[in-house]
Amino acid sequence: MGDEVILLDLWSSPFAMRVRIALNEKGIDYESREEDLSNKSPLLLKMNPVHKQVPVLIHNGKPVSESIIIVQYIDDMWKDIAPLLPSHPYERARARFWADYVDKKIYGTGKLVWATEGEVQEVAKKELIECFKMMESELGEKSYFGGNTFGLVDVALIPFNSWFYALETCGNLSLIDECPKLVAWAKRCMQRESVSKSLPDQYKIYQHLLDLKKKLEAQNKV
Amino acid sequence: MGDEVILLDLWSSPFAMRVRIALNEKGIDYESREEDLSNKSPLLLKMNPVHKQVPVLIHNGKPVSESIIIVQYIDDMWKDIAPLLPSHPYERARARFWADYVDKKIYGTGKLVWATEGEVQEVAKKELIECFKMMESELGEKSYFGGNTFGLVDVALIPFNSWFYALETCGNLSLIDECPKLVAWAKRCMQRESVSKSLPDQYKIYQHLLDLKKKLEAQNKV
Repeated sequence: MGDEVILLDLWSSPFAMRVRIALNEKGIDYESREEDLSNKSPLLLKMNPVHKQVPVLIHNGKPVSESIIIVQYIDDMWKDIAPLLPSHPYERARARFWADYVDKKIYGTGKLVWATEGEVQEVAKKELIECFKMMESELGEKSYFGGNTFGLVDVALIPFNSWFYALETCGNLSLIDECPKLVAWAKRCMQRESVSKSLPDQYKIYQHLLDLKKKLEAQNKV
Repeated sequence: MGDEVILLDLWSSPFAMRVRIALNEKGIDYESREEDLSNKSPLLLKMNPVHKQVPVLIHNGKPVSESIIIVQYIDDMWKDIAPLLPSHPYERARARFWADYVDKKIYGTGKLVWATEGEVQEVAKKELIECFKMMESELGEKSYFGGNTFGLVDVALIPFNSWFYALETCGNLSLIDECPKLVAWAKRCMQRESVSKSLPDQYKIYQHLLDLKKKLEAQNKV
């Protein structure tokens, strides 16, 4: 197609993982450029001057930011291959609602589980488990959130699979006991090459989060 | 069309205003049901069990929540009348990015301007003006954020026009001095019947926010 697709990327970012999964689902060739958040590239600052965050997809020179918006863009642009959003408006709205729920709830609550201790962590643990149970209830007996087809909500949530070990270890909780169907769904997703090759090793994420926690504590940011 | 469209509504909510504007732009007949947030209706709790918030659009018995998702649903569902999203994927992504920016920045920062005082308010004032200037810069010389056509970003931002007087009075700031082009854009939008009939009087909002501020102070919530 002659398209130039560049991803301003970060291996450990669940938001960047979403974009990698969507690109892989569609079979789009892209160049990943790893960013260093402590020394952001001039290209990142130029392409996302508002938020200055990864991921940014640069398609033929034009930038798109915010992971869920990027995934929708990829689906809009390459719509004939492996559609990620349902065709009916109501189902589309429903998928957007749950992707938005993941954005609003899982990341922030998860951070409190791995980055804090004591009372704050206890409250966050309960809330995180409630959120996962809510997602499990939305999943129901379906293979994927969209039904038989892997789609937007799956793309939004599955990156957190690489955080499960860290969340379980830091939070002393068992996701398989709390949400067995969600864990089964995550295993199902991990069997897709698009997903498995986009997600880092969970032990590497665990070590990364431990390092990050030390830095945050040193800066009094948690 | 025989469609039943019910909006679980709140006169003062900028998020509910967005939905009213979108419905009016499309000329869709709907029934507005005003909610009392201190005594939420069983219907609201049933239709939006996750967030329990207005607005909720109930279309032929099926609920859609989260204002920007509702507006996109309305645009998807009634797509031949007054399109609110551009047709090109890149422009669609851009519109979604700025609507998301409004959600992430304007409401929360604005609340700190009307609900707090002193240092916190000063910091919030600077940030709010920066946000409005950012929006003004994205508007550029265009009539609307989408160009010549009133669209998603206009729908997302214009409800805050009814808050301008409160923000200016509580924050002791002048939007016409800081962002003259944005104020001109707001006047242009207000000439549309879809907008003017969806927005409450700004003095009524001001009084409402003063009352709310007293309640928040009494509860130590600011």
